[in-house]
Amino acid sequence: MTSNLTVGVLGGGQLGRMFIEAAHRLNVKVVALDPNENSPAKQISGLKHMHGSFKDSEAVKELSSQVDLLTIEIEHVDTESLKVLNVQPTAKTIGIIQDKLVQKEHLKSAGSPVPEFAGLDSIKDAVEFGQKHGFPYLLKCRMGAYDGRGNYVVKSRDHVEEAWNALGGKLLYAEKFVPFTKELAIMVVRSVTGEIASYPVVETVQKDNICHLVYAPAQIDGVVAQNAAKIAREAINSFDGAGIYGVELFDTPDGILVNEIAPRPHNSGHYTIDACHTSQFENHLRAILGLPLGSTDMKVPAALMVNLLGPETYELTKKSLVIPGATAHLYGKEEAKPGRKMGHITIVADSFAQLQSRGAMLADIKTIKPRPLVGIIMGSDSDLPTMKPAAVILEKLGVPFELTIVSAHRTPLRLVEYAKSAHHRGLKAIIAGAGGAAHLPGMVAAMSPLPVIGVPVKGRCLDGVDSLYSIVQMPRGVPVATVAINNSDNAALLATRILGSSIPTYLDAMSNYMEEMEKEVNVKIEKIETQGWKDYNTGK
Amino acid sequence: MTSNLTVGVLGGGQLGRMFIEAAHRLNVKVVALDPNENSPAKQISGLKHMHGSFKDSEAVKELSSQVDLLTIEIEHVDTESLKVLNVQPTAKTIGIIQDKLVQKEHLKSAGSPVPEFAGLDSIKDAVEFGQKHGFPYLLKCRMGAYDGRGNYVVKSRDHVEEAWNALGGKLLYAEKFVPFTKELAIMVVRSVTGEIASYPVVETVQKDNICHLVYAPAQIDGVVAQNAAKIAREAINSFDGAGIYGVELFDTPDGILVNEIAPRPHNSGHYTIDACHTSQFENHLRAILGLPLGSTDMKVPAALMVNLLGPETYELTKKSLVIPGATAHLYGKEEAKPGRKMGHITIVADSFAQLQSRGAMLADIKTIKPRPLVGIIMGSDSDLPTMKPAAVILEKLGVPFELTIVSAHRTPLRLVEYAKSAHHRGLKAIIAGAGGAAHLPGMVAAMSPLPVIGVPVKGRCLDGVDSLYSIVQMPRGVPVATVAINNSDNAALLATRILGSSIPTYLDAMSNYMEEMEKEVNVKIEKIETQGWKDYNTGK
Repeated sequence: MTSNLTVGVLGGGQLGRMFIEAAHRLNVKVVALDPNENSPAKQISGLKHMHGSFKDSEAVKELSSQVDLLTIEIEHVDTESLKVLNVQPTAKTIGIIQDKLVQKEHLKSAGSPVPEFAGLDSIKDAVEFGQKHGFPYLLKCRMGAYDGRGNYVVKSRDHVEEAWNALGGKLLYAEKFVPFTKELAIMVVRSVTGEIASYPVVETVQKDNICHLVYAPAQIDGVVAQNAAKIAREAINSFDGAGIYGVELFDTPDGILVNEIAPRPHNSGHYTIDACHTSQFENHLRAILGLPLGSTDMKVPAALMVNLLGPETYELTKKSLVIPGATAHLYGKEEAKPGRKMGHITIVADSFAQLQSRGAMLADIKTIKPRPLVGIIMGSDSDLPTMKPAAVILEKLGVPFELTIVSAHRTPLRLVEYAKSAHHRGLKAIIAGAGGAAHLPGMVAAMSPLPVIGVPVKGRCLDGVDSLYSIVQMPRGVPVATVAINNSDNAALLATRILGSSIPTYLDAMSNYMEEMEKEVNVKIEKIETQGWKDYNTGK
Repeated sequence: MTSNLTVGVLGGGQLGRMFIEAAHRLNVKVVALDPNENSPAKQISGLKHMHGSFKDSEAVKELSSQVDLLTIEIEHVDTESLKVLNVQPTAKTIGIIQDKLVQKEHLKSAGSPVPEFAGLDSIKDAVEFGQKHGFPYLLKCRMGAYDGRGNYVVKSRDHVEEAWNALGGKLLYAEKFVPFTKELAIMVVRSVTGEIASYPVVETVQKDNICHLVYAPAQIDGVVAQNAAKIAREAINSFDGAGIYGVELFDTPDGILVNEIAPRPHNSGHYTIDACHTSQFENHLRAILGLPLGSTDMKVPAALMVNLLGPETYELTKKSLVIPGATAHLYGKEEAKPGRKMGHITIVADSFAQLQSRGAMLADIKTIKPRPLVGIIMGSDSDLPTMKPAAVILEKLGVPFELTIVSAHRTPLRLVEYAKSAHHRGLKAIIAGAGGAAHLPGMVAAMSPLPVIGVPVKGRCLDGVDSLYSIVQMPRGVPVATVAINNSDNAALLATRILGSSIPTYLDAMSNYMEEMEKEVNVKIEKIETQGWKDYNTGK
């Protein structure tokens, strides 16, 4: 075994089940405390588990006496009794996070960016919050809320009382409405040794306030993602205690805001089982035992997690069996009540395009715009007519791209910024069109490790030979992949071949394109041979 | 659940354990029969399992009465009693495979290529086999042998008696010694519905006759691998019954030979848990339940499986915790006896180069030569001096490559063969050097979907401009990535950038290369500024 310690877990739901699954592989014993004798966690273990409530301090103490350390799979536990026990994360941290108002205050004082909020003692406070921060705003329960329960959108002054009463009228707080563009999430893990690591930033899609889909990685600019990960790690470093944490974020026009933190494995991290080097569950175990953390990198280019809720579960699971790259995880729950999390499916793919195609059978997933893989840049908008065919071809072949102007001579600092950040942002190839002195492709290649494709643009004199020579005759050390003069079609096809070199989806796209080309010529062969050369294309 | 059937498994070792792990995710109930009450399989399940021997027909019948169908995790079971029970694969198939002589006869009659062999009734037969097929040859027990036990290498006529007696002198057979270059293996799965699929071809490395390492995919020509997979599928299609089968093969100078078949999950398929879309265990379950088979494709570019044997286990497991991409699978066995399979570690990587670097901490893995990712071709050996710098750079950057002559005009059919098969063989980019008419790069690009990099070679006249124009001015539809005249260094760097586009290991290699270049220039800057321009490089 990797550890002789036995771990007790408060709660035996699906999170406990997947935690025990990870512990089995490292021969670590885990005992679950749950009122259900046939709970998801208990079903997959031959050990004797405890029957009782994780809110019952006597039961928690009894579990603690049987094991070396405790952890949680749900934060709604009795933190008072935990204070004197060996638990990770700490009782203090669980306590702060349990109370969403205290959590927000903690985050704000730690310097994490959070939406405006305020604790409320009365309806009067609630009215004043709306008057100060505007309607609609969110009225929320401080304690015990999850999956959208305990939240209320206060549309106007007239709805304050209704909202107040609907949420029970006590232990409430208000949060300013944030016009976010995406909901993001990051799993962060910190060991008892202080080692900290974050998983990729993912995008979450809610349906009826319950997590419906998770895309990994989020299809946002890679530099923005790096910043979001930094904010998430800093937020977690403001709390005590080891383990995995789910950090929910808002991507807003004004930057990243922290929404909420869960001090345990999280639904937005389920994709890590099939898509990352080390799952959130194994890293939680490593973190609380003080073992080295496992790599949080993805081992596949793209992943989608679909939650299986209620009665739909079995139909969706059956469908998933024929989807390449799909893995079903059922939790062993008996009754498929509406809205109940019965399992999830993870789909992995070689690209976001393949992910969208594979996932289409399970969910409506056309809404997310893929992050560009290819950048088309040109020195001037006058080059657009020459470069447009590249965009047309990439669109046709399903290659996500961006198109913009970067001038080597008129925007040299933008050139540096673009070239230096391209691979961090998520680009895999750059197409650069330039005429005359045509420095753009070579200068980008000098500052980016990506393959740069140069399109010599024909100017008023020299027939484009000036651009061709300037682009192709690069010095030893810095290559530019040069295509024919004014032939941006070929630049796009070369970019697709470059993607296809390692991504089967684009290799197939290129093979199909070549077959189509051959077919088109075959049609002409047929025509020229049947019409004869005299009547060919004369309209006869 | 995906099936209401309960499955009984004969044997509760690590294969049963990993089978149950897969069944949990699909909510399928599996009951194990094993004499050990705390067997690896039973430890990870809350169900009531059976205590007894899988060789005891009464126990097997009792298990059968409790479940809907039976399967096995070990083939050394009592097939007589299974004949009247519902078992997959069938009792007949298990019976044929149990007896290695009968298995070989079956395979031979089914048309599978096998080494020469013969059943032996006496020492006289054993002597005659050696005289006919040469020494050394292999004397083998027909029944009950595994992990090299029950095999004996008969070095010469003088060793026949010794070998014969060492193996007990009955139920023996002889097999001609095969001078194989590699030991390969393929998992093949066939459903009760008849659907069949094969996993990638892997290479296995034995140590003391026990499987030590498994590399996936095998670093052999992709076309050879396709042929090996076809042979394996045909061999399995000659047997009755559903489930997963391990097919061990020899790669010999005369082609692929079938060595041995296992009618169950196999050690050479453990890598599928972490490296393939659907694991061998889940596909075994799907196959016997008649569910659609899952994709057998790898979801990562490369994987290594290291068996954990005996007392070394915990030391190696601890080391694995700091290796990115490594996942440990411990089997929960209590006593780490020497040679006992206690667990395995799978390492996944973005390339074979990264795999070798990641695996080095656990095993001596420098022996396997990686399959080429880049092909350097030229029209004539007179181009070699121009193309050699490309080879030097690829070698320096750790990019596996091949270098050969393909002439468009003198070996046109070889050109077609090379271009058409390149991506099937495993290449990801092609560098083609050509002078004068310089048709090679363009013609290869016309027949391969891979990125083709053209190096214009300078001839006796026109300063290489003839080659440059011929290579770069490709028609719309077929791009060639052209680099500077005679600049094959840049072709190699471009090929590395193309790999790095999707493979982080090579992106890092390119970033490092660019930093080194910058440093070299910085040294010259320092020198020219301190020595002054007058004394620079004059030796003063």
